[in-house]
Amino acid sequence: MNYDQIFDQAIDRLHSEGRYRVFIDILRNKGAYPNARCFAGHNGPKPITVWCSNDYLAMGQHPTVISAMEEALHDVGAGSGGTRNIGGNTHYHVDLERELADLHGKDGALLFTSGYVSNDATLSTLAKILPGCVIFSDELNHASMIAGIRNSGAEKKVFRHNDVAHLEELLAETDPALPKLIAFESVYSMDGDVAPIHAICDLADKYNALTYIDEVHAVGMYGARGGGISERDEAASRITIIEGTLGKAFGVMGGYIAADSKIIDVIRSYAPGFIFTTSLSPVLVAGVLASVRHLKQSSIEREGQQAAAAFLKRSFAEAGLPVMPSTTHIVPLMVGDPVRAKQISDILLAEYGVYVQPINFPTVPRGTERLRFTPGPAHTEAMMQELTEALVEIWERLELKLAA
Amino acid sequence: MNYDQIFDQAIDRLHSEGRYRVFIDILRNKGAYPNARCFAGHNGPKPITVWCSNDYLAMGQHPTVISAMEEALHDVGAGSGGTRNIGGNTHYHVDLERELADLHGKDGALLFTSGYVSNDATLSTLAKILPGCVIFSDELNHASMIAGIRNSGAEKKVFRHNDVAHLEELLAETDPALPKLIAFESVYSMDGDVAPIHAICDLADKYNALTYIDEVHAVGMYGARGGGISERDEAASRITIIEGTLGKAFGVMGGYIAADSKIIDVIRSYAPGFIFTTSLSPVLVAGVLASVRHLKQSSIEREGQQAAAAFLKRSFAEAGLPVMPSTTHIVPLMVGDPVRAKQISDILLAEYGVYVQPINFPTVPRGTERLRFTPGPAHTEAMMQELTEALVEIWERLELKLAA
Repeated sequence: MNYDQIFDQAIDRLHSEGRYRVFIDILRNKGAYPNARCFAGHNGPKPITVWCSNDYLAMGQHPTVISAMEEALHDVGAGSGGTRNIGGNTHYHVDLERELADLHGKDGALLFTSGYVSNDATLSTLAKILPGCVIFSDELNHASMIAGIRNSGAEKKVFRHNDVAHLEELLAETDPALPKLIAFESVYSMDGDVAPIHAICDLADKYNALTYIDEVHAVGMYGARGGGISERDEAASRITIIEGTLGKAFGVMGGYIAADSKIIDVIRSYAPGFIFTTSLSPVLVAGVLASVRHLKQSSIEREGQQAAAAFLKRSFAEAGLPVMPSTTHIVPLMVGDPVRAKQISDILLAEYGVYVQPINFPTVPRGTERLRFTPGPAHTEAMMQELTEALVEIWERLELKLAA
Repeated sequence: MNYDQIFDQAIDRLHSEGRYRVFIDILRNKGAYPNARCFAGHNGPKPITVWCSNDYLAMGQHPTVISAMEEALHDVGAGSGGTRNIGGNTHYHVDLERELADLHGKDGALLFTSGYVSNDATLSTLAKILPGCVIFSDELNHASMIAGIRNSGAEKKVFRHNDVAHLEELLAETDPALPKLIAFESVYSMDGDVAPIHAICDLADKYNALTYIDEVHAVGMYGARGGGISERDEAASRITIIEGTLGKAFGVMGGYIAADSKIIDVIRSYAPGFIFTTSLSPVLVAGVLASVRHLKQSSIEREGQQAAAAFLKRSFAEAGLPVMPSTTHIVPLMVGDPVRAKQISDILLAEYGVYVQPINFPTVPRGTERLRFTPGPAHTEAMMQELTEALVEIWERLELKLAA
């Protein structure tokens, strides 16, 4: 057994497919987002503009969030020092869970160390608690949901993306006596399209299924108080479990679910991924509290983001760039080849100081490699015009096709 | 299918076994650890002393750590805004990975959002990369290692706790051509005993197995620079992968592995739990950097902790309290019954302002429920004497047995 050889082969596969990942080493400039400093391959930091951050509303730089974190740091210190059950349950955690339950109109919520962990831990635990549970999963669900479903050991039936007719087919063929769970996302983050929540809930009612929605790319950004697409579409009360993140629009780090208090109690009591881990640092929790409270009563950030996304989509389309048909704040440009996508990204960074990461397999299917832009309230129209011009220049230089 | 009924039954099982968990709602007082404020069941916060924190060396309150976090907060903001691959790779992350690699004498390291995730993601990915891999796992391994092993789908052989003869038996009966991985901990956190690292590495050499050690309850606390038991025992170079946490002795939050750069590259490239999650907040990373650097050159904290643990063990033993034979900083008192353990803990909190969480199943086996004390450099001898007196009074009140 030659271990090194196996490890070498694993890495060689990535190189040969052109999808070996190089992490771009940056530091953002607080208060000046989307400006940042880049360290990779340069002598000293070079100024760049970030176009691929999931700090969608720049709340990670908001003065209210920063001061709340600073205050907590001086009040209680750096970490929580324990699991939620053993010394790591701070008053900040208790307050934030109340705030998140209220955000979604549920009577309970539960914090996790990340959105990934909230999906993995909740889905795997829920399906284990319900003997014989069958999980119906959208084919484009995030890796963390797929992990949770696989780790549950439950039977999984995959329905075609956002295809309610196919979902109904699968529900109808399943034993009515078995517990059922429909797992899907509201905003699909690599395409920017949105799930038909009410139609899915209608099927859940008809076939007595529970529903689980991942709103990580929607919370903070949709609905009058930032409750996500389920708030915007007035569907939150129809969803059994709403899952969200604290690391994207809320600008900090962590994940959560909101649901009936009974379900929260079950997950809290049985999920190893919740029980056996140090709880979120109270410093982070304090920042999120400020962020959630701010976005509950302020819509300026949401409106700025929507305006920027609309402007950039129009700008790309008018220039003939292959912008994908997103209905949300996410603006993907299709490239269709991992080597080409990385080449464009490298030129943008080296020559234009534009940072946008190429997205490749396994984040998206092979052959659909893309550049994914996430303009926000702090990206100006001038920045977006410059970006469009840069892309057109590169498209022409590489002899890629522009629409007429 | 009545979902509510199933959820009710799941919760009822916990109540009937006396192991339904109530989280104690606290806030620590920065700069005055182990003092804290307790909110549960009181009108307003009540002062308490924390005896069960895993912020073992009070580094979560250290001025150097606090200022480093404050500085990062004002330099770059709250969160990283993305995965390591997409916008979330800050210069702090790069620096900390270098620092941790150096701490363990390895040429690479990789950060995860928690110790739980580092175990789960690394073990499950490693075993999938090595076709036919057999994992040899100590029977007392942490839930996160068990999760990673189960999620890998690899064959698992469990050896009796710290029993190298049994481990050898299992290795010898396994096909020599198959890849093998021995997974164990250095300090077992609920008993406080230590693994025979060299003996395990001898077997790994003999049977050509990789080794994986969980040092979460040892990093920062053992070895001249805080490299853990593997540093203290001069065994680090013999271990394939060393796993640690940033949320216990280092006082903040997060997890990591240190290993050969080739293995780091494989895990970095293939582990969904690493790839698909927002990276650690740079504020946390900055705090950990300061903490690791401090503990590399300061032993006062380690010495204070060892002195406190020795004093408390002696104090408990002299009073006839059932202190378990720990050889480390962990001081467990055996109770052996979940209801009784909770009762003692409740009296300590309500009448003595002492916070120590009862430890029950599934954290420890049924029938071995205990109170687990983690004295540190900030717990004074006077505090420990008072604690011993309180416990003796409660033991007598509840008519529990004291040794002669």
